[in-house]
Amino acid sequence: MKPVCLVIGAGAGIGGNIGKRFAAEGHHAVLCRRSDEEGLNALVAEIEAAGGSASGHILNAIEDGAIEERIAAVEADVGPIEVAAYNLGAQIGDRKLEETSYKQFEMGWRLGTFGLFRLAHAVCPLMEERGKGTILVTSATAAVRGNAGQHSHAAAMGGRRMLCQSLNAQFGPKGIHVAHILIDGAVDAPDTLGKMLGPERFQELREARGMEHDGLMLPERIADTYYHVAQQHRSAWTHELDLRSFSDLAWWNHR
Amino acid sequence: MKPVCLVIGAGAGIGGNIGKRFAAEGHHAVLCRRSDEEGLNALVAEIEAAGGSASGHILNAIEDGAIEERIAAVEADVGPIEVAAYNLGAQIGDRKLEETSYKQFEMGWRLGTFGLFRLAHAVCPLMEERGKGTILVTSATAAVRGNAGQHSHAAAMGGRRMLCQSLNAQFGPKGIHVAHILIDGAVDAPDTLGKMLGPERFQELREARGMEHDGLMLPERIADTYYHVAQQHRSAWTHELDLRSFSDLAWWNHR
Amino acid sequence: MKPVCLVIGAGAGIGGNIGKRFAAEGHHAVLCRRSDEEGLNALVAEIEAAGGSASGHILNAIEDGAIEERIAAVEADVGPIEVAAYNLGAQIGDRKLEETSYKQFEMGWRLGTFGLFRLAHAVCPLMEERGKGTILVTSATAAVRGNAGQHSHAAAMGGRRMLCQSLNAQFGPKGIHVAHILIDGAVDAPDTLGKMLGPERFQELREARGMEHDGLMLPERIADTYYHVAQQHRSAWTHELDLRSFSDLAWWNHR
Amino acid sequence: MKPVCLVIGAGAGIGGNIGKRFAAEGHHAVLCRRSDEEGLNALVAEIEAAGGSASGHILNAIEDGAIEERIAAVEADVGPIEVAAYNLGAQIGDRKLEETSYKQFEMGWRLGTFGLFRLAHAVCPLMEERGKGTILVTSATAAVRGNAGQHSHAAAMGGRRMLCQSLNAQFGPKGIHVAHILIDGAVDAPDTLGKMLGPERFQELREARGMEHDGLMLPERIADTYYHVAQQHRSAWTHELDLRSFSDLAWWNHR
Repeated sequence: MKPVCLVIGAGAGIGGNIGKRFAAEGHHAVLCRRSDEEGLNALVAEIEAAGGSASGHILNAIEDGAIEERIAAVEADVGPIEVAAYNLGAQIGDRKLEETSYKQFEMGWRLGTFGLFRLAHAVCPLMEERGKGTILVTSATAAVRGNAGQHSHAAAMGGRRMLCQSLNAQFGPKGIHVAHILIDGAVDAPDTLGKMLGPERFQELREARGMEHDGLMLPERIADTYYHVAQQHRSAWTHELDLRSFSDLAWWNHR
Repeated sequence: MKPVCLVIGAGAGIGGNIGKRFAAEGHHAVLCRRSDEEGLNALVAEIEAAGGSASGHILNAIEDGAIEERIAAVEADVGPIEVAAYNLGAQIGDRKLEETSYKQFEMGWRLGTFGLFRLAHAVCPLMEERGKGTILVTSATAAVRGNAGQHSHAAAMGGRRMLCQSLNAQFGPKGIHVAHILIDGAVDAPDTLGKMLGPERFQELREARGMEHDGLMLPERIADTYYHVAQQHRSAWTHELDLRSFSDLAWWNHR
Repeated sequence: MKPVCLVIGAGAGIGGNIGKRFAAEGHHAVLCRRSDEEGLNALVAEIEAAGGSASGHILNAIEDGAIEERIAAVEADVGPIEVAAYNLGAQIGDRKLEETSYKQFEMGWRLGTFGLFRLAHAVCPLMEERGKGTILVTSATAAVRGNAGQHSHAAAMGGRRMLCQSLNAQFGPKGIHVAHILIDGAVDAPDTLGKMLGPERFQELREARGMEHDGLMLPERIADTYYHVAQQHRSAWTHELDLRSFSDLAWWNHR
Repeated sequence: MKPVCLVIGAGAGIGGNIGKRFAAEGHHAVLCRRSDEEGLNALVAEIEAAGGSASGHILNAIEDGAIEERIAAVEADVGPIEVAAYNLGAQIGDRKLEETSYKQFEMGWRLGTFGLFRLAHAVCPLMEERGKGTILVTSATAAVRGNAGQHSHAAAMGGRRMLCQSLNAQFGPKGIHVAHILIDGAVDAPDTLGKMLGPERFQELREARGMEHDGLMLPERIADTYYHVAQQHRSAWTHELDLRSFSDLAWWNHR
C-alpha cells in the first residue's frame, strides 16, 4: 500500500504539482479542489499516465465537515496519510478596508486559518499515533507583513503562520513535521494568478517575466522543495522557509 | 467638548487604566466591558471623583453590531472618538489542540481579530474624514510566536498583528495612528490574570513577583506608554513596541 | 547634583535634540561629537540659554579609549551617568559590494557595533552597581533588513541590534534599561541627511516632504519618545520600538 | 572538469559533511580548516575512497588575504567555484559582558561577519560574470536573537544575517543564490560541540539526546538540505530557512 499524500487545494499551480511530484515518488496522491471537475480528472489522468497513482475529489473546504470527512474516508479507504499539504489561498486581491466586507474577512479566516486548524484537528491524532507525518503549509508574504489592501489576507495568513508554530511546538516532538513555506512571489499558475489577472494580462506577465526568464515561480520547481522538506531526516527539520524567483526582491525589500 | 477615548475591554487591568489615564489628561473615557456592571460603575465613579469624565457600557463585543452601534452612539451623543483602544484578549489558557474546540478557536478569532476589524471598519472612515485619530491595540506574545497550547490564541493574535500592519499601511498617511503594543509578560490585573489563576495563586504570584519588586507589569504604568504613543507627533509615530517588566525575559529568550 | 545624560553622536539631529530634551527635564547633558566644535559650542550655549546645563566634547569614537575615558571623566567630574544615548550612525550611502572597501566595512562595524560594545563595557558595571540606568540606542531600518548597497551598514546595524538584545538579557534584571529605537525614515537633520544629499537636494526634500507636512521626521519629536522611554517605570519597559513619519511606509512595505 | 564546492570551515561536523555530500554528487570539494591537518587529510581520503574528488587546505580565515588567495588559487588551479559554503562559527560559549574582551568581540566579528564579506568580495564578481553560483551560509540562533552571554556571538551572527540579505538583494538578480541557513540546535559534531563540552559531557549529551533518538542534529542530514538548496531552480530559491531536531523547541520557544 502506497503512502498517501493529501493535497487540499490541488489546482493547476502549486497544489497540482505537489500531487504530481509525490505521486512520481511513490505516493498515492489524493487531490482535492473546490471546482473544475474536468481539470481535476485531467490531473489524475496525467498522474496515472505517468505511472503514478492518484484520486480526485471536489471539496468545498469551508463546508462543515468537508475536510474532516475526506480525511476519515482516505484513512479508511486508501491508507494512512503520510503527508498533508494545505494549499488553500485566501487572497482576494487588493481591497481597501471599506471595500472588504465582514463576509469576505470571515471567508479569509475560514480558508486561511480555520481550515488548517480543522485539518490538523483531524489528522494530527492519527499521525501522532503512528509517530510520524508531515504537514506542508503553503503560505504567503502576507503572513509576515500586512499591507494596504491586504486586511483580510494578511489577518488570515498571519493567523495561519502562528498556528503553524503552535502545531509545530506541540507535535514536532511527537514526530509530526509541520512546515510553513512562504511563497514570496508570483507563481506561474493559471488557476490563481491567471484568474486574478485575466488571460491576457496573465500572458503578458508570463512573457515579460516568466517564460524563458524564470521570473515567475514555476510550480513544479516549488514542488521540488515541498518534496525535499517532507524527506528531511527528523534530526534536521525545517519549520520555516521562503521561496521566490532569483530575479525578485525579498518581501522585506519590495512593496 | 472633550475629546473621546473609547476603550473596548475596560476591566481592572490595562483597559481600565487607559481610561483613567486619558480621563486624567482631559479626555472623556467611554468604557466598555462585557460584564461586571458594578466594577464598571465603580471605575466611572473613581474617574469622576478624580475630576475626570467617563461613561460606562456593558458590551458583548462578539454580538452582531455591538461595537458598531456603540461607536455610532458615542459619535452622536458624546463626541468624536479621538482615541480607540482595542484591549480585548483572546487568551483561553494553555490547551492542547485536541482540547481546543472549533467553537473556542472561532471565539478566539472573533475576539482577537474580527472585533478589531469591525472597530476599524466603523471608526476609520470617521477618523479619516477628520484627518486624525489613534487606534491603540493591546497585543500579546502570541502575536509574534506560537507555542504548544496556544493554537487559538496565537492564531488570533497573529492575525491581529497583521491586521494592524494593514490598517497602518492604509490609514497612516490619512493621519490615523495605529499602534500595536505587545504586552510581553504577566500583568498585575485581577480581572484577567487573577481570574485565570484563581485568587490564591494570583496573590502568591503577586507577592513573589509583583508587589515591591515590579516583576508583574503594573497596568497604570503600561497606560503611561499608551498615553505617550497617542501623543506622539505625526512626524515620529511608533507602530510596534513591546512592554515587559525589567526582571522578565523577552519573548525571544523565554519559553 | 543633576543626573547626567551622555550623548555619543550629538549633532544637530537626533543626538542634539536628545541633549536639549533631557537638559530641559533637569539632566546635565554631556554632548560628544566627532567634529564641528563651533556647532557643539552653539548647542551647549543654546541649552544654557534655556536654563539647562550641558557640556560638550569633541570625541572620535573609533579612537582607542576615547569613549571609555570620556565615561570615566564624566563619572569622576560631573556625576553618575543615568542615561547614555548611543547615536552614532554607520551609514555610508548606497554602495555596491565592489564599491565597499574592507576599510569601510570595518569602519561600519567600529561605529555601528563595536562602539556600543565599548560604551556598555564601561558604563554597565557602574549602572549595575547603582541598580539603575538607561541605554538608548538609535538604530536604523538596516538593523532589521539588508538591502542592495547596504552591505556595510546592514551588517553593522544588524550586529548592533543583536548586541542590544544581549545587553538587555544580561542587564535588564539588574535594573538597566536598554532600548533599541529603530528610526525607520528620513530625519530632518542637516548634519546627516543634509550632508549626504548636499544643501540643495536636502532643501528640496525638506520642502517636498518635511516642512509643513511632517513627512521628514522631526528630531525634536523623536527626542520626545527617547525621553519617554527613559522615564518608563521598570515594570513596563520597552526594549524595541520603531519610529517613522505618518506619511511614510513601514520598512516591511517600502523598498 | 568537475564543478567546485569550496568549504570554509570543514571540520568533522557540518562543513566536512557538506564536502562529502557535494563530492558524492559530482563536485570537487575544496576543504579548508584552521587546524588538524590529520583530520583534514583523513576527510579527503574518505571522500576519495568513496570515489569522490577533494583537496584540503589549512587556512586561518582571519589572516589577511587567506580567503582571497585560496579563492584565486582554486579558480586558477582547480576550476570555477560553483558553490561556496561559509561555515565558520563565532561561538565562544556563554560569557557575560565583563568576561568578553575587546579582542574576543573583534574576533567574533572577524570570523562571523567580516570573513563572509571577504569571501563574497572575492567570489561574487566571478560568479556574476558566469551568471550563476551559490553561497551557502551556516548561521545560528544568535543571528535572530541576542541572549545573556552571547554579546559577541549574537553581534557577529546578526551582522552576518543582514549581510546575507544585502548580498542576496544585490546578487540574486545576477544569478547568485545566497542562502542563510539557521542551525537552531545542537549538532552532533565532535570538533565544535565536542570541544566545547569536553569528551565526557559530549558523550553524555549524545547518549541522552543524540544517538538512537536524533535529538542532536546529524551533520550528514543537515548537508542533505544544503545540497537541496544548492540545487533549487532559480525560479524558486530559498533565502532563509531554519533547521532543528524534531524533538527540540524552536528558538522562539526555548531559552
